[in-house]
Amino acid sequence: MTIFDVAVWSQGRVRMLDQRRLPNAEIYHDYGSAAEVAEAIRAMVVRGAPAIGCAAAFGVAVEAFRVRALKGVPDSWVEAMAPGLAQLRQARPTAVNLGWALDRMAPLLLTVDPEAVPERLLAEAEEIRQEDIAACRAMGALGAAILPAPPPDRPLAILTHCNAGALATAGYGTALGVIRAARARFGRVVVYATETRPYLQGARLTAWELRQDGFDVTLMTDSMTGHAMHCGRIDVVVVGADRVAANGDAANKIGTYMHAVLARRHAIPFLVACPLSTIDLATASGDHIPIEERSPTEVTHWAGQPVAADGVRVFNPAFDVTPAELISALVTERGVVQPPNESAIRALFGSLESLPGTG
Amino acid sequence: MTIFDVAVWSQGRVRMLDQRRLPNAEIYHDYGSAAEVAEAIRAMVVRGAPAIGCAAAFGVAVEAFRVRALKGVPDSWVEAMAPGLAQLRQARPTAVNLGWALDRMAPLLLTVDPEAVPERLLAEAEEIRQEDIAACRAMGALGAAILPAPPPDRPLAILTHCNAGALATAGYGTALGVIRAARARFGRVVVYATETRPYLQGARLTAWELRQDGFDVTLMTDSMTGHAMHCGRIDVVVVGADRVAANGDAANKIGTYMHAVLARRHAIPFLVACPLSTIDLATASGDHIPIEERSPTEVTHWAGQPVAADGVRVFNPAFDVTPAELISALVTERGVVQPPNESAIRALFGSLESLPGTG
Repeated sequence: MTIFDVAVWSQGRVRMLDQRRLPNAEIYHDYGSAAEVAEAIRAMVVRGAPAIGCAAAFGVAVEAFRVRALKGVPDSWVEAMAPGLAQLRQARPTAVNLGWALDRMAPLLLTVDPEAVPERLLAEAEEIRQEDIAACRAMGALGAAILPAPPPDRPLAILTHCNAGALATAGYGTALGVIRAARARFGRVVVYATETRPYLQGARLTAWELRQDGFDVTLMTDSMTGHAMHCGRIDVVVVGADRVAANGDAANKIGTYMHAVLARRHAIPFLVACPLSTIDLATASGDHIPIEERSPTEVTHWAGQPVAADGVRVFNPAFDVTPAELISALVTERGVVQPPNESAIRALFGSLESLPGTG
Repeated sequence: MTIFDVAVWSQGRVRMLDQRRLPNAEIYHDYGSAAEVAEAIRAMVVRGAPAIGCAAAFGVAVEAFRVRALKGVPDSWVEAMAPGLAQLRQARPTAVNLGWALDRMAPLLLTVDPEAVPERLLAEAEEIRQEDIAACRAMGALGAAILPAPPPDRPLAILTHCNAGALATAGYGTALGVIRAARARFGRVVVYATETRPYLQGARLTAWELRQDGFDVTLMTDSMTGHAMHCGRIDVVVVGADRVAANGDAANKIGTYMHAVLARRHAIPFLVACPLSTIDLATASGDHIPIEERSPTEVTHWAGQPVAADGVRVFNPAFDVTPAELISALVTERGVVQPPNESAIRALFGSLESLPGTG
């Protein structure tokens, strides 16, 4: 499988493939501070919930190296790192992996040898990255195992939305991990990718990533999935998530809810694949997930040129929430919950956290 | 109301506003033959079912003037006009108004004074144009009358898809005619317009047309309507149609079906506005409506530049079918049918055609 430097450590800096330029150019940037990494996350150099988590973790590490190089070991790592951590935390609001990664890194500022904090943070960031790749592989296997059998006359046809692939994770992908494992299981699959307006992650990233690995990919606009389902072209839908609430409601790229409603109408299974780091037990339901609104120009302009009439208002939510009742199965690295429900989700986290009141 | 030269007679030629260039440029072209008009329809200089019907009617007239100027009055107008009529008929497959207009023009080739055929055809084309404007006004009044009352805290919010406006008709519009009449009824309305990929008729045409008339327009991508409905932003959906089958199934711009499914889920009324010329009693149901597939480059390219990965396949249907069961009301110039059903639709055409077997 093609491996991308989505967010990796490279010679003392955080290296990221600039996903805004794909598929027309493969350009890498190296970042040397938390502020720079936060800005790269905000500007969508890197995107995808698990990838944002990895990038933030490396952002913490690189900030610590920067602080030590500039001023030596600080009296308080917590104080010295506070501004950088705050910048990272505010970079984007919806993906919970960002906060999850920071919450996992932060205690290391207190508990280890102050001299070795930067190295310890880097090791943890690497650990997060490796765990994410392993989680994607596990999700792939578990998700592929519950896919329906292909129809007799053609390969299994899987619809996906946005990019929940190697480019959205440390590698292999969540939804695209399931699709990769499905190909391994069935020999061949065909993939339908929505273009995913306004940012075109489907056209630019998913189609490109899957073509690199030789998949049969058919692109369509977001508005065509209902007709494609009506025509019998889609057997199953597999998407990722940016935040899953305790009750199984899933925030994901804008449009996901629509595809889920259509899938239900056409009795097509709808799978959400995400690591436990995307599940936020502290958020009771989808109603409490903050939905980022992005710039109007993402809708009104194309490559800097206006395409819409002057004077229009714009509604540009980056995500929507698919209620648990429309999700056939939630696929995680620790197991599949079908259909999603709070007690089964809490049970995935182990016996302690499955007790009431500990989420 | 702003009036556009969508398809009009101008100094012996057919004049059309080039809708491909809107909203960035207002450019008009004059066409002197059926072949040129057919190519303009195919290339989407003009689009929208009623507008295509008008353009085709003027295309027949201009062809007759061209033939007479070139060779004098032919022995057989039917023979002389056959190639031009065939080119027009094949220009686009889904909108039934094209064939309807040609079927209305064709008998005039036989029944009138051969010397005066061009003038008679032009008069009929003008009649079709004036009838369409009158039909739009009537639909507007009838449609606005059945809209729900605005909520107490804000103006009525109407979602529309694609462009079923003055630009899609001879003037005033079908869905946008209802919206214009709604403003007259309620004093103020707010309009949500989908951008309508891949051709962006919503962003380029609807937003522009409505802004010309001072409407409050909010643009969003096609993928955002479900979330907008979930947020309580939409009170009613009003769209046009390219062909309505005898049972009330309505073919309209790709994505319409999706919005209808979402509207039903959110208990939001879904109105289809179209003149009788769009209703095809010879087509029993939506399953029999031909769905045009257009060029892959509409999806993979933007202003000539590739945005999608190389090597992808493309699914690019221009229309989909909304089943009658999802349509709250069908609004025509002769009355409203709610919900659509075959006997009520046939009754609109008058007592003769409402008898079994005469459709």
